[in-house]
Amino acid sequence: MMVNWNNLDTLNAYKSLAAKKDSVDLVTVMSGENGANRAKAYSVPMAGGMVFNYAAKAVDDAVLKNLADLATEAQLVEKFEALYNGEVVNTGEKRHVLHHMCRGQLGEAVNADGVDKRTFYTTQQQKIAEFANKVHAGEITNAAGEKFTTVVQIGIGGSDLGPRAIYLALENWAKVNNTFKMEAKFISNVDPDDAAAVLGSIDVAHSLFVLVSKSGTTLETLTNESFVKDALAKAGLDASKHMVAVTSETSPLAKSSDYLAAFFMDDYIGGRFSSSSAVGGAVLSLAFGPEVFAQFLNGAAEADKLAANKDITKNPALLDALIGVYERNVLGYPCTAVLPYSQALSRFPAHLQQLDMESNGKSVNRFGEPISYVTGPIIFGEPGTNGQHSFYQLLHQGTDIVPLQFIGFKNSQIGSDVVIEDSTSQQKLCANVAAQIIAFACGKKDENNNKNFAGGRPSSIIIGDKLTPETIGALLSHFENKVMFQGFAWNINSFDQEGVQLGKVLAKRVLAHDTDGALKVFSDLLNI
Amino acid sequence: MMVNWNNLDTLNAYKSLAAKKDSVDLVTVMSGENGANRAKAYSVPMAGGMVFNYAAKAVDDAVLKNLADLATEAQLVEKFEALYNGEVVNTGEKRHVLHHMCRGQLGEAVNADGVDKRTFYTTQQQKIAEFANKVHAGEITNAAGEKFTTVVQIGIGGSDLGPRAIYLALENWAKVNNTFKMEAKFISNVDPDDAAAVLGSIDVAHSLFVLVSKSGTTLETLTNESFVKDALAKAGLDASKHMVAVTSETSPLAKSSDYLAAFFMDDYIGGRFSSSSAVGGAVLSLAFGPEVFAQFLNGAAEADKLAANKDITKNPALLDALIGVYERNVLGYPCTAVLPYSQALSRFPAHLQQLDMESNGKSVNRFGEPISYVTGPIIFGEPGTNGQHSFYQLLHQGTDIVPLQFIGFKNSQIGSDVVIEDSTSQQKLCANVAAQIIAFACGKKDENNNKNFAGGRPSSIIIGDKLTPETIGALLSHFENKVMFQGFAWNINSFDQEGVQLGKVLAKRVLAHDTDGALKVFSDLLNI
Repeated sequence: MMVNWNNLDTLNAYKSLAAKKDSVDLVTVMSGENGANRAKAYSVPMAGGMVFNYAAKAVDDAVLKNLADLATEAQLVEKFEALYNGEVVNTGEKRHVLHHMCRGQLGEAVNADGVDKRTFYTTQQQKIAEFANKVHAGEITNAAGEKFTTVVQIGIGGSDLGPRAIYLALENWAKVNNTFKMEAKFISNVDPDDAAAVLGSIDVAHSLFVLVSKSGTTLETLTNESFVKDALAKAGLDASKHMVAVTSETSPLAKSSDYLAAFFMDDYIGGRFSSSSAVGGAVLSLAFGPEVFAQFLNGAAEADKLAANKDITKNPALLDALIGVYERNVLGYPCTAVLPYSQALSRFPAHLQQLDMESNGKSVNRFGEPISYVTGPIIFGEPGTNGQHSFYQLLHQGTDIVPLQFIGFKNSQIGSDVVIEDSTSQQKLCANVAAQIIAFACGKKDENNNKNFAGGRPSSIIIGDKLTPETIGALLSHFENKVMFQGFAWNINSFDQEGVQLGKVLAKRVLAHDTDGALKVFSDLLNI
Repeated sequence: MMVNWNNLDTLNAYKSLAAKKDSVDLVTVMSGENGANRAKAYSVPMAGGMVFNYAAKAVDDAVLKNLADLATEAQLVEKFEALYNGEVVNTGEKRHVLHHMCRGQLGEAVNADGVDKRTFYTTQQQKIAEFANKVHAGEITNAAGEKFTTVVQIGIGGSDLGPRAIYLALENWAKVNNTFKMEAKFISNVDPDDAAAVLGSIDVAHSLFVLVSKSGTTLETLTNESFVKDALAKAGLDASKHMVAVTSETSPLAKSSDYLAAFFMDDYIGGRFSSSSAVGGAVLSLAFGPEVFAQFLNGAAEADKLAANKDITKNPALLDALIGVYERNVLGYPCTAVLPYSQALSRFPAHLQQLDMESNGKSVNRFGEPISYVTGPIIFGEPGTNGQHSFYQLLHQGTDIVPLQFIGFKNSQIGSDVVIEDSTSQQKLCANVAAQIIAFACGKKDENNNKNFAGGRPSSIIIGDKLTPETIGALLSHFENKVMFQGFAWNINSFDQEGVQLGKVLAKRVLAHDTDGALKVFSDLLNI
């Protein structure tokens, strides 16, 4: 089926949706028996045994019907089909978009560069698994024949945020489940204090470094590689015995003898979508074992399958995306906060910040034509309950409304807990997120305006049993697919990032002392 | 002098300011010789030898004159004078606001609770210094007579974010400067995995815990205290030999024999402003020594003195605040990003997020009357250059404009660096922030719309020589005073936080199983 790419504001379903502004009073619909019925009904299953509950979003059956019509008219699921069947959806860079293929074969085989891409990705996974197993078994060691104890990822952006967020999400789980193999550290920033601090915190003689750069030309990553090589040399170590590369087959790193091994990615997986490729696979397989990484991929694959469903009540990523478009374009909210009630998800909001803002922070459509509606929101967030004692004041009583994405789990990962005043800490954590949903939606009248809560502040919640490799895989995929569907709805290319280029070009000019005007003044002020 | 509290939109200076919307074209004024002149001229000295450069903000001499008039008409500096001279500026809670007094005596002596408050705060500092020196000297030890090696802060919100951000800001500096005394860790979240993971990462037998709760009733903190006490008991240790309290003199913790020592704070310092009180003082003095904490306070005191100046060109906090009001209320920007080009400031944006959003996320004025203009913005941020590879795409080419607050230092803290392609990492870091200022302000025309940068995206930059105890103190104070001035301009009470109450009340009801409607459904879904 051919798909048609049209701007959001040309769609009939969007025009009727725009007429449904403020048609739902959250305070009313979320109160009393109404609210109980909604809380039960407005919930759809997700992968990994989770649910996506949207009862506290300002939608009703009429808005939902309209959103379903929008999905149909904009052919959102058909566009996903085109994507996973190998259409060149990243039109700006003329590339396939194949990150889903790292975790399963959703549709037809896709051949590119003369190979079947699913085979290419699984081959890399197998190479990584074999390598990781040998490291864990002590078959691959340092020059002194000693086992590696630490893995250090050197990468930035998508080569850092996703893998780091997933590592933190599973670190304690792996320790409890006896699959913790190696501690992982991350060096990302070109700030020399980042690499120096990490190197100061590890035993370099027993550390294995994973250099991640698709092009093999990322400034920060190559600089930090040299920084690390200097440190290894000073410690009398042979760097080539301590480093592996994750890169594309055509990069200068691919066949270098500087590395113990090289694992490949390709141009069809963007950095922010690369956690399920070798970019996440190497460091996570080394840290937790390849079986854990495979479980993570299974969770993501299960979520991908749901995303192929045309029924919005069976496709949580699509439903989440559509509600987001309604909030952004009809209700006019510029931000979304991601609030996981799980300390292990402390850096998941930072990953989603990149995923969403880099994908959909665009002002032209996929044909390069300016558009006249807003696109991707600002994404920010911190774990609850910490955020409650920080920025929730503004969320509750500030002058702007911020839609909220809660995430909660019934059980902790470590299982160590304490009963105070008849409840565990885990119960207190869960009680807080339940309470916040209602506090934001319903508010509470008070004669003292300063203590008055207007309510009407929308949220959704993803609820899972426990944060595991499958659930973090499913969460990652859910948000990747949500962002993709929103990009389709906005008719933009979610898979390029031309907005990062100008800064790079100007920074090179500064370093070459080829500047004038204000740039020269700032360069002087910063002593460059 | 009596001050008058009036809503922003009643002020003549605000009305004339509102008429100056979009009067400055950033692309034009920041280009060529114009831009060079602006970059040199639009800069004011800050404490700690830093400068605040606002050349890339969309202001000109006419707007600046108008902002100065606004400061005068709104009596912003007079209100600060009233505050530090002891007026009950926190009207909702009927409290003085005295955090400045931890770092100096700006105006008249303030007596409250029968004591001179400056004496009270300095006495606590001395008590902490003596205690910390004894711990470092091995005069206060664990029951086995062994030195404590780790300090663990148990606190949430203002008892966590500020002290944690400052600890991270100075950890490497202290190591290089031989003032690193004890590693610090932080337990904040009620999520049991937070406490369990921290306890699993330390040697509890040699750890000293600092319990921080002003009221002595904070749910998360008391729960985590019990969690820690359980762990100490299981390790056969006497908890009372491993814990100190930071609390108010009237709290149940103040005279308890459960603690080795108690250091006092009071109701006149709000959590988010408490880093320079015993809340930051205990953990930072233990980690780095009392002399380093004193240097931090000196930097803050120097910044406070600048904030008392009525000339906006000599008062960077006031100038920064006024430009922010112009951007928020006249230009209509809902967010501000804080972007430190310093990995050591990785959590400083999270502290500013609380400081700003909890202080100024309000919808009623200080008299409890609804206001008809927007107040505090959404604050978010991550260190550069990491952010460049994450969310900068949206900042450069998204449909919304986000004002930016850069921070950069000429020198790294550790001093270890590497030369690649003729420049050090530190030079690359600085080149990037200089480049970003110009890229955002001036943009770059391209026939391909997808590669076009419209520019006109405002930023300011704070430039320092190096991140030291004085500079982080000065930065902290700068932003505290900025937030305070903005609160005065908006005529709101920046020092209460009624918006956090409703969630607490509802969470208690959930834990007591006293719920109905949607709240009961969510409680059931979360297995409480």
